[in-house]
Amino acid sequence: MQAKNRPSFASDYLEGAHPLILQRLAETNLVQSAGYGMDEYTASAKNKIRAACCAPEADIFFLVGGTQTNATIIDAVLQSYQGVIAAETGHISVHEAGAIEAGGHKVLPLPHKNGKLSAREISIALDRYWKDETHEHMVMPGMVYLSQPTEYGTLYSLSELKEISALCHRNQIALYVDGARLAYALACPKNDVTLPDLAALCDAFYIGGTKCGALFGEAVVLPSHNTIPHFFTIIKQHGALLAKGRIAGIQFDTLFTDNLYDRIGRSAIDAADRIRKALSEKGYRMPIPSPTNQIFIEVEKQQLAALSDKVELGFWENIDENHVVMRIATSWATRQEDVDTLIACL
Amino acid sequence: MQAKNRPSFASDYLEGAHPLILQRLAETNLVQSAGYGMDEYTASAKNKIRAACCAPEADIFFLVGGTQTNATIIDAVLQSYQGVIAAETGHISVHEAGAIEAGGHKVLPLPHKNGKLSAREISIALDRYWKDETHEHMVMPGMVYLSQPTEYGTLYSLSELKEISALCHRNQIALYVDGARLAYALACPKNDVTLPDLAALCDAFYIGGTKCGALFGEAVVLPSHNTIPHFFTIIKQHGALLAKGRIAGIQFDTLFTDNLYDRIGRSAIDAADRIRKALSEKGYRMPIPSPTNQIFIEVEKQQLAALSDKVELGFWENIDENHVVMRIATSWATRQEDVDTLIACL
Amino acid sequence: MQAKNRPSFASDYLEGAHPLILQRLAETNLVQSAGYGMDEYTASAKNKIRAACCAPEADIFFLVGGTQTNATIIDAVLQSYQGVIAAETGHISVHEAGAIEAGGHKVLPLPHKNGKLSAREISIALDRYWKDETHEHMVMPGMVYLSQPTEYGTLYSLSELKEISALCHRNQIALYVDGARLAYALACPKNDVTLPDLAALCDAFYIGGTKCGALFGEAVVLPSHNTIPHFFTIIKQHGALLAKGRIAGIQFDTLFTDNLYDRIGRSAIDAADRIRKALSEKGYRMPIPSPTNQIFIEVEKQQLAALSDKVELGFWENIDENHVVMRIATSWATRQEDVDTLIACL
Amino acid sequence: MQAKNRPSFASDYLEGAHPLILQRLAETNLVQSAGYGMDEYTASAKNKIRAACCAPEADIFFLVGGTQTNATIIDAVLQSYQGVIAAETGHISVHEAGAIEAGGHKVLPLPHKNGKLSAREISIALDRYWKDETHEHMVMPGMVYLSQPTEYGTLYSLSELKEISALCHRNQIALYVDGARLAYALACPKNDVTLPDLAALCDAFYIGGTKCGALFGEAVVLPSHNTIPHFFTIIKQHGALLAKGRIAGIQFDTLFTDNLYDRIGRSAIDAADRIRKALSEKGYRMPIPSPTNQIFIEVEKQQLAALSDKVELGFWENIDENHVVMRIATSWATRQEDVDTLIACL
Repeated sequence: MQAKNRPSFASDYLEGAHPLILQRLAETNLVQSAGYGMDEYTASAKNKIRAACCAPEADIFFLVGGTQTNATIIDAVLQSYQGVIAAETGHISVHEAGAIEAGGHKVLPLPHKNGKLSAREISIALDRYWKDETHEHMVMPGMVYLSQPTEYGTLYSLSELKEISALCHRNQIALYVDGARLAYALACPKNDVTLPDLAALCDAFYIGGTKCGALFGEAVVLPSHNTIPHFFTIIKQHGALLAKGRIAGIQFDTLFTDNLYDRIGRSAIDAADRIRKALSEKGYRMPIPSPTNQIFIEVEKQQLAALSDKVELGFWENIDENHVVMRIATSWATRQEDVDTLIACL
Repeated sequence: MQAKNRPSFASDYLEGAHPLILQRLAETNLVQSAGYGMDEYTASAKNKIRAACCAPEADIFFLVGGTQTNATIIDAVLQSYQGVIAAETGHISVHEAGAIEAGGHKVLPLPHKNGKLSAREISIALDRYWKDETHEHMVMPGMVYLSQPTEYGTLYSLSELKEISALCHRNQIALYVDGARLAYALACPKNDVTLPDLAALCDAFYIGGTKCGALFGEAVVLPSHNTIPHFFTIIKQHGALLAKGRIAGIQFDTLFTDNLYDRIGRSAIDAADRIRKALSEKGYRMPIPSPTNQIFIEVEKQQLAALSDKVELGFWENIDENHVVMRIATSWATRQEDVDTLIACL
Repeated sequence: MQAKNRPSFASDYLEGAHPLILQRLAETNLVQSAGYGMDEYTASAKNKIRAACCAPEADIFFLVGGTQTNATIIDAVLQSYQGVIAAETGHISVHEAGAIEAGGHKVLPLPHKNGKLSAREISIALDRYWKDETHEHMVMPGMVYLSQPTEYGTLYSLSELKEISALCHRNQIALYVDGARLAYALACPKNDVTLPDLAALCDAFYIGGTKCGALFGEAVVLPSHNTIPHFFTIIKQHGALLAKGRIAGIQFDTLFTDNLYDRIGRSAIDAADRIRKALSEKGYRMPIPSPTNQIFIEVEKQQLAALSDKVELGFWENIDENHVVMRIATSWATRQEDVDTLIACL
Repeated sequence: MQAKNRPSFASDYLEGAHPLILQRLAETNLVQSAGYGMDEYTASAKNKIRAACCAPEADIFFLVGGTQTNATIIDAVLQSYQGVIAAETGHISVHEAGAIEAGGHKVLPLPHKNGKLSAREISIALDRYWKDETHEHMVMPGMVYLSQPTEYGTLYSLSELKEISALCHRNQIALYVDGARLAYALACPKNDVTLPDLAALCDAFYIGGTKCGALFGEAVVLPSHNTIPHFFTIIKQHGALLAKGRIAGIQFDTLFTDNLYDRIGRSAIDAADRIRKALSEKGYRMPIPSPTNQIFIEVEKQQLAALSDKVELGFWENIDENHVVMRIATSWATRQEDVDTLIACL
């Protein structure tokens, strides 16, 4: 439930939207525009995203949320007899309530390292499939699903992504990147994967809005025009088409004006880096080497109780009787004074 | 595309949201709250809707759009072998890109009268099914889907709704009412079906937000607690769960504060009534007797061209070489001066 | 239930299989062969069907039953956002328990004439779709489904089929013909559509076994190689792959040896023609002009009771209080003496 | 491809059907009977199976194949938001081409031991699900799927099955047993699980025909009447309803007459035991302790080539550069002299 008097670091979607988004919604509120994304705000947002991705031919679509976006794209790209390779910890593997299977497709889980898949693991899985004498009785891998950053806040390097992309293309399977928290990857000093890199290497990816400063919304980028024919109708069929498409368009138009999406990411990373530094100095164990806006720390249960009076953290998992892993997430909305409070009570 | 200098009556979702909604989103923007509808705004909105429906036990859920809501509820309520009876003109029959079928269910279309089904037609269809010796090879009717108002702006009377509800319950099939434009029914002087009536007579219905003053959002009302077990997970599986559930909660909390939902409906109906009166005086033929916020008029194509320079209307259908039916829709955002403009150029 | 002492004309699948099929199953019974249709009997049957169809490049697959075949092919051929046009009386429209919708696709019903669609009706439906301004919100027609003969025993002429085929190809939608009773069309003197014609004009069709002398089985013909990539896996995914594929292969190999399929059809048609002649002489009204192995007659309910003591007919539909339509179906197994009995008691 | 001059032990579905089945099909061939399983042979088979299972109230249905049966039952029993727990090596996990996911359900794989799940593993998985704070965003376990014997030929003991059954019922999830090769379990001296045990402990199971002497066919047993309402229609919707249901009925009626099903199992087990004894004496390593009709042996690749000139074995998996695991399967049709040949060339 809602954090009243103590600041919360439980997740990165605790507030509404970046104030500039609300301001722009208010300014445009009474302008009449066509529905279903045929409005001028949406057109402008698409052009700004094309420019940011150096992908002038890209098809851009705005959907509402992450699970919806994953389910819609994966169903649209895969053939009926294909499945999608994902880390066993991936969002689609665990936390989408079977949305991919509801669309008829198997998630093919692979072992992960800090939330990441390796080209090697994917390659082994593909070989195993193609060399199996009974593979025609099995689900054919048709796509690789990655998240940047991953569920664990970790990042694929450009060389890793290039290797996976080359592997996918060699095997004629699609590469799709879930960027629910992409702002926090792009703004991370350790990151070397840019939007143009994603556009060059992926068949599809999405730029997350919900967790990166918008009220809601995810921008799907299909770098090659007509990658998914009739995707508008497919979106509608998946119940993912906004009647007032402008609401998503205005938000992304704002996020991609004056580098707002970058600034949102950077302020969250700055806050996370301050917290990581303090944790490190105080000797906290951080079991997952996340350089982005999510920090995972080991805490004694006793200590946690005291901590939880002052700040709210997110539960991640139990280690043993006495220890848990907690998640600290920062966002565009994280305030300096709340970081101070957190550091003070560590 | 966007109407620039001329007012548009093409639909009732041309603008953003009622200003009170934007104001409330701004006021609450930086308050931290839990995700997925576990916040206090959503809780408050649910209570207000329960009160408005005189349905203290009702389960309330907020989804994003109409097609999504229909697809999710229908799939959740029907058994795998059941289909849903709907008017052949119903939204689910025609304009949802096969979303119901994508969920595995057949829409069983019946003839309509001005967009309405009759208890008699439904009864005949049920009899035909049950008396058919091969009915075990056929799709079993499991639900009746109505819209209030219908696609044609017409209304079910309380007695009609009672008759259909009794028929459904006698046959142990669910009754579901799509209220995408419910505000415009509730506010209509000719309407005698209240929210408590809907709660008493339906197994499920939704109170439309998108077309009635919200940025987006539909409030599903399940009058009997636990009508759909695990509906939260089902919503997630359908990609219909908002991470920032509060955005829907705040909107419906605002709509159900100080009768805003009623006021929104009433202003649209007042504008529509003024237009209807003028049309009537000027001798326009209105082929569908809609008393709500949608007006359908016959226009000569030549005349339409002239009209379209001054106001934008919505195309409905061709009648013959020279005549079309156009739709005029009013909304909470319709301005007096635009109605004046419209009437002046009729 | 089973007809004991009186002969039954209730349907064309009342017996086991043509004796030559049982004989061949017995002869080959202990030969070991590979599973899943990789055996030599299946290979031989495919070659014989390719030859009969003058379609040397055709892909041939053997499935078990009609609904399964329709559901598997339609799902494999259609894109997710497409539906299939069918007569409102078509098997997929009415009597497949929603199997097409369970695969995610809408059946788009059109009015029929004696069970047949016309190129004109199809053309109007396609035009209506493409000219509708909102067609991107609608299910796109992706296939035309016909039956030869139809549910009503009627036949498409070659010129009708050519016209529909040309229309489909012009509109880039697939043409699929359900040949559950194809033997009875091919053997009908009024028929001018051959197997090579079907192969030349359709994207897919099936040659029915279940109702034409086999224990079970339908032979799918895809005249162009690789019309449906990975169809083997799709068949498996639909639960339609026989482990002992040879059982279907042996049956079709037998059916296409020494013109057995033709002979089966001809004997049924001969019997039906004798019955039709007698009915005609005795003044029975036959409301549907079926020239194939199904005959539809109007009977008074009183008269029916007497008749039913001596022979079993199939109930088709009620006309009014006192009259019903009954179906008489002949098959490869219809005996001369049973026809005599039937004619005697008419 | 087909084994010509050398006997094959590659699988247990290399031949047609047990001769008594063919004989019975021939004897009854010209008797007319009702379709869709409404015939007297099917009724008789059902009664015999009810008797064999000591389950007089059981609903029995005959389907065509194993994947079809699994997909139909699992889809019918699970709620839309539920998945099925299975061994990661289970048939539904690997070799059904995604048929379960095509029905919308996730297979929840668990580690196995020789193809078996343990109550402990299942219990841990259920606990993990229910204790996860985010479990409402996850697929709910709704069923446990076991095979008896497993893919590896191993058996659940009665006490293991009782423990799993009790666990399932305590957690209100269904227990379903895939008995594709059930004859070979029932006839195994090490087995202590009878048909009445299965009926007492499972919510659903099937008695395999295809791999146990029939041309095709699986007998679904639902021990409690009306476990799956409208299952007939569900079967039809899944394309799994035989028009000539009698063909399955006659086969199972024969299998359950004069203990044929037991005799079929026993002869296969006797042959397998002879082979196992010889293998053991000759020092072959058998990596999986299967006591049923499947035997897994380690062979050097060089040795395999020589062996394959004389008998055909089934490839199972590679161990390393020089070694493979091969499968030897016996069946009702395995001949003494072929066993002699096999043993001679080991």
